[in-house]
Amino acid sequence: MTQAPPAAALHPFDHALALEPAGTHRYLGHTSQDYWNMIGPFGGMTAATLLQAALCHPERLGDPIALTVNFAGPIAEGPFEIEARPSRTNRSTQHWHLALRQDGEVTTTGSAVFAVRRQTWGTGEAVMPDVPPADTLPGMGGFAPVRWLGRYDMRAVRGGKPAAAAGTEHPDSLTQFWLRDAPARTPDYSAVAAWCDAFYPRIFLKRAGFVPAGTVSLTTHFHADAATLAALAGQYVLGSAQAQVFRQGFFDQSAQIWSAAGELLATSHQIVYYKE
Amino acid sequence: MTQAPPAAALHPFDHALALEPAGTHRYLGHTSQDYWNMIGPFGGMTAATLLQAALCHPERLGDPIALTVNFAGPIAEGPFEIEARPSRTNRSTQHWHLALRQDGEVTTTGSAVFAVRRQTWGTGEAVMPDVPPADTLPGMGGFAPVRWLGRYDMRAVRGGKPAAAAGTEHPDSLTQFWLRDAPARTPDYSAVAAWCDAFYPRIFLKRAGFVPAGTVSLTTHFHADAATLAALAGQYVLGSAQAQVFRQGFFDQSAQIWSAAGELLATSHQIVYYKE
Repeated sequence: MTQAPPAAALHPFDHALALEPAGTHRYLGHTSQDYWNMIGPFGGMTAATLLQAALCHPERLGDPIALTVNFAGPIAEGPFEIEARPSRTNRSTQHWHLALRQDGEVTTTGSAVFAVRRQTWGTGEAVMPDVPPADTLPGMGGFAPVRWLGRYDMRAVRGGKPAAAAGTEHPDSLTQFWLRDAPARTPDYSAVAAWCDAFYPRIFLKRAGFVPAGTVSLTTHFHADAATLAALAGQYVLGSAQAQVFRQGFFDQSAQIWSAAGELLATSHQIVYYKE
Repeated sequence: MTQAPPAAALHPFDHALALEPAGTHRYLGHTSQDYWNMIGPFGGMTAATLLQAALCHPERLGDPIALTVNFAGPIAEGPFEIEARPSRTNRSTQHWHLALRQDGEVTTTGSAVFAVRRQTWGTGEAVMPDVPPADTLPGMGGFAPVRWLGRYDMRAVRGGKPAAAAGTEHPDSLTQFWLRDAPARTPDYSAVAAWCDAFYPRIFLKRAGFVPAGTVSLTTHFHADAATLAALAGQYVLGSAQAQVFRQGFFDQSAQIWSAAGELLATSHQIVYYKE
């Protein structure tokens, strides 16, 4: 047994993820100012924390395959309760019901599928974009009031912070950046869940400026096993995100997360509310 | 008031969708042989029926924006009970918890987000593939024991039933086909939910043959309003589906559904179990 490190050594992500068991299928957590967005927590941190409740549950089977998180209402600064309940456990798969509540009110709902991965025939069909290495690119400019951006080291390949005149329609909404936690942290499934939401809303790029927008529903599919994630250690991963359609107050946003070695670690799809 | 048509005139899809209220947030349904797969119902029909329970719920607000369905266990031929419960209702959005049970056991879980759509700035970014019209293409060959395929008229543009020698690795897993219900039916959100799962598993194409496979989790984002769907009447829509990665027993499959006029009606993403 090694002694637990002092609290000061805890990575901000692990601090934000921390959950205290509070009865059957229930955990208590607290929002983190380190991962604060503008008027609530960074949605990726909320997704990661919901997943973490299933990951640390004593009945957990296997590793995450799919995670859906629905952002139903605002989360205030302060404590919250997560319900993580297995809906059904099979021989090699497990289905989870997830909910986050504050003062008894549901703010976030979700589901996850876990499974025991096994070696099979496999192949990648999508090909990692050919991009310059992270260390040749400058850090991506932040959006001033958004604190969680400081918890990531982003190196934009294309589609960084919108630079064109506001209101100019950009031909595409594609952002590609190298990404790692800041400070660097060996990733796990929770980290990947957060990464998948680390792209600013595609409408900011498409419209070259700020538009009120917020994720409504986020689904992530995990394609890497735990050993693959652990072997990444503090390396950058490549993130890519693009929208397909903006219509009647909602747009979609699909993301890919690649290892530097070209392995597709996760794909993620969200639908986002916008007001314009 | 017009008289209800005789039961014989009911479209098989409407017959399969039929739900009987059975108390607060509960509905009774029955599997349909018209939409039978090999050892259970067509997953698209299950997704459509879960969505239908929210659509016909007296507390429903707005129209579907997102639907996630997790296939947790087998569904046997016979009756089932659906729970469709609003988790949270806001001014213009509503979140749903969905579950399908047989004999008290959860076979399927899900969630949906509904919202009131409104006119905003909008644009399509993805472009509909340039393909020949449906009426110039032959009907797509079916897979003999799969009954639900008879309930769709599919005209393959590319990636129809695998023709190469089994075990040959196909360079891509892209299928494009024109699709409509058979007999033709004016679509609604439930129809779109089913269409998004109408693509045979991508691994059949990639590996040029049958591989045991089944959808684990399916998420659909709806981009069209009800009037747009109704105006399609009996027209074909163009469906497109492709995988990005096959690894350790799971592959992903992303689909797009386009109107013939080039409007992206829905995008859908699933993760599929395979044994190979």
